[in-house]
Amino acid sequence: MFDDILMEKIEYINNGLNKLLDIDDKPEILYDAMRYSVFAGGKRLRPVLCISSCELVGGDRDDALPVACAIEFIHTYSLIHDDLPAMDNDDLRRGKPTNHKVYGEALAILAGDALLNYGFEVLIHHALDSANCQNILRATEEIAHAAGCHGMIGGQVVDLLSENKNITEEELKFMHDHKTGALIKASVVAGAIMGGADDETIKKLSDYAEYIGLAFQIKDDILDVLGDESKLGKNVKSDLENGKSTFVSVFGLQRSISLVKELTASAIRILDDFGEKSEFLKSLTKYMADRDS
Amino acid sequence: MFDDILMEKIEYINNGLNKLLDIDDKPEILYDAMRYSVFAGGKRLRPVLCISSCELVGGDRDDALPVACAIEFIHTYSLIHDDLPAMDNDDLRRGKPTNHKVYGEALAILAGDALLNYGFEVLIHHALDSANCQNILRATEEIAHAAGCHGMIGGQVVDLLSENKNITEEELKFMHDHKTGALIKASVVAGAIMGGADDETIKKLSDYAEYIGLAFQIKDDILDVLGDESKLGKNVKSDLENGKSTFVSVFGLQRSISLVKELTASAIRILDDFGEKSEFLKSLTKYMADRDS
Repeated sequence: MFDDILMEKIEYINNGLNKLLDIDDKPEILYDAMRYSVFAGGKRLRPVLCISSCELVGGDRDDALPVACAIEFIHTYSLIHDDLPAMDNDDLRRGKPTNHKVYGEALAILAGDALLNYGFEVLIHHALDSANCQNILRATEEIAHAAGCHGMIGGQVVDLLSENKNITEEELKFMHDHKTGALIKASVVAGAIMGGADDETIKKLSDYAEYIGLAFQIKDDILDVLGDESKLGKNVKSDLENGKSTFVSVFGLQRSISLVKELTASAIRILDDFGEKSEFLKSLTKYMADRDS
Repeated sequence: MFDDILMEKIEYINNGLNKLLDIDDKPEILYDAMRYSVFAGGKRLRPVLCISSCELVGGDRDDALPVACAIEFIHTYSLIHDDLPAMDNDDLRRGKPTNHKVYGEALAILAGDALLNYGFEVLIHHALDSANCQNILRATEEIAHAAGCHGMIGGQVVDLLSENKNITEEELKFMHDHKTGALIKASVVAGAIMGGADDETIKKLSDYAEYIGLAFQIKDDILDVLGDESKLGKNVKSDLENGKSTFVSVFGLQRSISLVKELTASAIRILDDFGEKSEFLKSLTKYMADRDS
């Protein structure tokens, strides 16, 4: 049941992404490179959170779809740039060659730039087309802040600076709050804004998103130690090899596993306030904690 | 007289850029890297065009300032990424070491990403703060389109693909229309929108901007052949060494010089319609054609 609903939502989002990337312009190779990474098998977690949060507060998911797609474009750009030789130098992502392995480094940089820019283009068009301009702008502000220097990019810089260094719990938390947590939170909050939620509801869902964002990252670190390469589609133990501090290296494996459980329980407790409507998000929250890839 | 007015405008813009980049957050090195390239001696041509176009149509330049600054952030990000080893591999820009020479490649990629993202953050904040939200969104749409896959990034990809190849006049023009022309045009058009211009006026200024954008790029190619390295702050003949097609290689030097004159004259004829108010932009247009750096 949950699987079917999730699959339907992913298909809905993939259709949206497909339409937005069905661009007939030159140079073709740029659009190929953009599409390659967007359709390289992502789990669509952020856009699913975005439309589900919109639906949870009683909104129409069609209003949130362009926002959800823009978030996925921005997320994909960040993966392309993270994988570059000058950054994590990864050859595989989701079991496929990374963008720069297929298109070369220069085009990978530009395809990433183009996806970031296109995310904002989609949001601005949506705002100009809509009667609901103010909500779209507020959602865009959340996303822009989460993606930028105060969010994802700041976290990525801290990650770079932390290589081969022992970092404190506080620094580790700062890094992941920014690098992964911020955009996950923005996905949930932007969805709630698009659904017309009031400030109190937005605050609740923002707290919910903080819990799942942190749980998601800790789970990622656990999978890097315990995961199955064939399921993950990437090399395990890469954090260790790259000299990266992770929740597992700082807290230990057992404490990390407990933390995922605690954070997931806290997240679900917040969803209790929303009654039956929150069944899907509750299942998704558990699915995120239990995933093996 | 023109020099004094230009200097005053540049100072006005630099103050705006300074305030927007006066950010007290971690990680400091990211903000240092962003500031380094923004304050590495740019001519501020695009933001000057933006506020001047706003003033020309009777607007208040304070309304256009955040838009002008966002354009300069986006322009600066494009320079940082263009200079990367995987792209043009330039060590010097405006007589100073390029961003990746100072901060390393990874941080240069991220500082560029951060400036692109921050440009949109500034625009969105401005739209949310302002009574004039619709105009800011329209200006933002122009900028986003000009900076993205259909504009600057598309042009840069064509540039990459053209290395060590003979390209046609048409391909050369496509490349520069997109790579340089689009953002120059967006600067003028966005300024006019912020000044409250009607559609007919915007169309006129858009034509004006097309002429100066093309003249600007041809002049750039001429300077790469005839320029003085100490004034340019970069190596000349780099296009030739990189096997790049330029207006000089395609049209020859004499024809290129004539083209700059013709395009400049056409641009100034459009400004004639605006009477005395257009004196500054006329001088700026001549200054762009006569510049030696």
